[in-house]
Amino acid sequence: MASKHFLTIKNMSKAVIEAEYAVRGTMSILAGKIGQGLKEGKKYPFTEITECNIGNPQVFGQAPFTYNRQVLSAVMNPELLKTNVYHKDVLKRAETYLKHAPSGLGAYSDSQGFKIVRENIAKFIEKRDGVASNPDNIYLTDGATFGLHVSLQTILSGPNDGVMLPIPQYPLYTALLSLNQAHKVPYYLNEEAGWKISIEGLQKSYDEAVKKGVNVRAIVVINPGNPTGQVLTAQEMLDTIEFAHRNKLVLLADEVYQRNIYKEGSKFVSFKKVVAENNKYPIDLFSFHSTSKGLMGECGIRGGYFELFNIDSAVQQQITKLRTMYLCPNTTGQVLTDLMINPPTAENSAPEVYEQFKREEQGIFDSLKYRAKMVTQFLKSMKGVTCNEVEGAMYAFPRIHLPKRAIEEAKAKNISPDLLYTMEGN
Amino acid sequence: MASKHFLTIKNMSKAVIEAEYAVRGTMSILAGKIGQGLKEGKKYPFTEITECNIGNPQVFGQAPFTYNRQVLSAVMNPELLKTNVYHKDVLKRAETYLKHAPSGLGAYSDSQGFKIVRENIAKFIEKRDGVASNPDNIYLTDGATFGLHVSLQTILSGPNDGVMLPIPQYPLYTALLSLNQAHKVPYYLNEEAGWKISIEGLQKSYDEAVKKGVNVRAIVVINPGNPTGQVLTAQEMLDTIEFAHRNKLVLLADEVYQRNIYKEGSKFVSFKKVVAENNKYPIDLFSFHSTSKGLMGECGIRGGYFELFNIDSAVQQQITKLRTMYLCPNTTGQVLTDLMINPPTAENSAPEVYEQFKREEQGIFDSLKYRAKMVTQFLKSMKGVTCNEVEGAMYAFPRIHLPKRAIEEAKAKNISPDLLYTMEGN
Repeated sequence: MASKHFLTIKNMSKAVIEAEYAVRGTMSILAGKIGQGLKEGKKYPFTEITECNIGNPQVFGQAPFTYNRQVLSAVMNPELLKTNVYHKDVLKRAETYLKHAPSGLGAYSDSQGFKIVRENIAKFIEKRDGVASNPDNIYLTDGATFGLHVSLQTILSGPNDGVMLPIPQYPLYTALLSLNQAHKVPYYLNEEAGWKISIEGLQKSYDEAVKKGVNVRAIVVINPGNPTGQVLTAQEMLDTIEFAHRNKLVLLADEVYQRNIYKEGSKFVSFKKVVAENNKYPIDLFSFHSTSKGLMGECGIRGGYFELFNIDSAVQQQITKLRTMYLCPNTTGQVLTDLMINPPTAENSAPEVYEQFKREEQGIFDSLKYRAKMVTQFLKSMKGVTCNEVEGAMYAFPRIHLPKRAIEEAKAKNISPDLLYTMEGN
Repeated sequence: MASKHFLTIKNMSKAVIEAEYAVRGTMSILAGKIGQGLKEGKKYPFTEITECNIGNPQVFGQAPFTYNRQVLSAVMNPELLKTNVYHKDVLKRAETYLKHAPSGLGAYSDSQGFKIVRENIAKFIEKRDGVASNPDNIYLTDGATFGLHVSLQTILSGPNDGVMLPIPQYPLYTALLSLNQAHKVPYYLNEEAGWKISIEGLQKSYDEAVKKGVNVRAIVVINPGNPTGQVLTAQEMLDTIEFAHRNKLVLLADEVYQRNIYKEGSKFVSFKKVVAENNKYPIDLFSFHSTSKGLMGECGIRGGYFELFNIDSAVQQQITKLRTMYLCPNTTGQVLTDLMINPPTAENSAPEVYEQFKREEQGIFDSLKYRAKMVTQFLKSMKGVTCNEVEGAMYAFPRIHLPKRAIEEAKAKNISPDLLYTMEGN
């Protein structure tokens, strides 16, 4: 019998069907069902569900910065500028945004984002890296996700194209590649060596893909690692850049966790800095940042940006055009992005404003650092579980050593052993 | 000589290169240059530029609704709930959102959007149409654009697929089809008959495309028209639905101007209502709405939604999955969408709150209606220009009757006559 629908699973986009997004996959759906069951009074050996499948700090009680929300609310409703509910520094900051964006949050901004915000981001990058940054090369986005979407859409040109992805990885990449009908070229991080990138491993993955006819176009590096929590050393970064250069790959640097580094002596270094300072390997670089992570964890507001470095101007024109098709990033997220990279300082703020901000920032950082340590210790204390130290980001990635019989049982049920493990008890 | 870049115009996405987006095309770029020139003191026969190439009301001084911005600012910064800067009705509304979304704006919401907002949208649709609406079939989006992007991405399955588009049209559609490497199947609105849809014209366009081997999958209808400003009659809608049904087409109903109707006796009727009430033609329907237009004109905040009607459940699952890949729509836009479809009423608000809202709403409506009339009258008064009455939306679409010599000159310069006309004087 013919379907009564014109649009069916048979004639819809194959690319959409093939895209898998594990973050909201089988386990997430099961958790949703159990959560619903708990609400309806069903009995489980626990009374609540804690959803740790995605970094969403404010769900767990992390408060937003007082200063940021005050400024955002005043930009949202400039009436507040005429009241005395906020410190004058807050009002001054809100006024600055409204001066540079006189139509406020309600008008479309430049497609690339408010100029004032791009200028401030460029200053932030220059200060961070000691390398020049041009506001024209910065594109504000609704979270890093949108930037990755636009970048991959620009780079990928046909069904033979492929992109190198770290394994374990943040599953968004696999999904975006499926949507763009491109090959996933996995490279394996070395768990025994603290999730290090192995250059031999990179080359091996690349060569294997090429042998299969894949036109490898780009490599994604997530630093600090998601979900593996490692922080790259300068040498690893340089080796990776040299590898990308040798094989003519565009580098996509996912640096959304640049503020989330907990390991003593470890420090975030941007790929841009390393590329710029080693002009032997002038690779094409896209760098991504977001307001969703870091210390603010403002996931829902959707802010972020990407910076182009050493990108052909004709290609950049196309990226700008593509960005215009999606009109503009949400303006609230743009202002929040500015607040992220341009926070109150001892120089530009009254002591009480600056001190409150610093106190809140330190509190969040200490809490994240403490939890990273606690989670690792707890996982390590479990029988049959090992876990590397969380150096950065917001995730621990344990290894579950399953008995042979469990693996055989999974095989018999035609599911993966880790899925069997996580589904146990239901 | 080889390019020093790995990513070049030759190896990047052809689909991105081919996508044209006229709203920010040649004229828009020229206007930008002249604007810059004016700032630098260059002389022109005018002193300022008014950018009318995109509906962006707040740039022209249209104020946002006081109530909406007060509520949004209090949801953004719940500290304000403890102050007396706002009317208690405003605080109550903000509290309601925070009650249903206890992590506030800073956490990811459900990918489909806050449940409370989807429930309210369903109620709004039921009241508007007298037809049942299910919150599970509603997807909140960052503006209608994102919804169209996701919908077309889902529907289009290969290089032979095509979508019918009105001409004149809002150029986003052409751009999105290029990105999805699908065929544009134009159908021409009848200018002499006030931009009516001609069913014979639809069938002719469809047949011609099929003859060329195009697999026509869907038809886009924009009502009220963009940029043509007409409002469809019930008969036109029914005929269009019958046409879609006969040819097994999915209907995409762009209804973002549903509040912008200025013609006496004209009324917005949704495609959903007509489809639901005429069960002879149970077509697959996607309907789009946005906070950017209507009477609030909140373009920058990026809110909106789409509703699925009569969509196969397996397809819907895929749409939900696709939506999750982009995490969630920005939360500020979600709250604003609720404010759009769930405004203060005489029943739920203190008289002073309701009256201020109504006064502002009437002011905006009257101003838009007046301007629609003024613009048409002005255009009609120009020599060699004709223009249909603006019945709805925010645009007038004049015809410029150029002398034969101008058309020949354009041909000699290898540009279109309308571009020659608009570029004159530079």
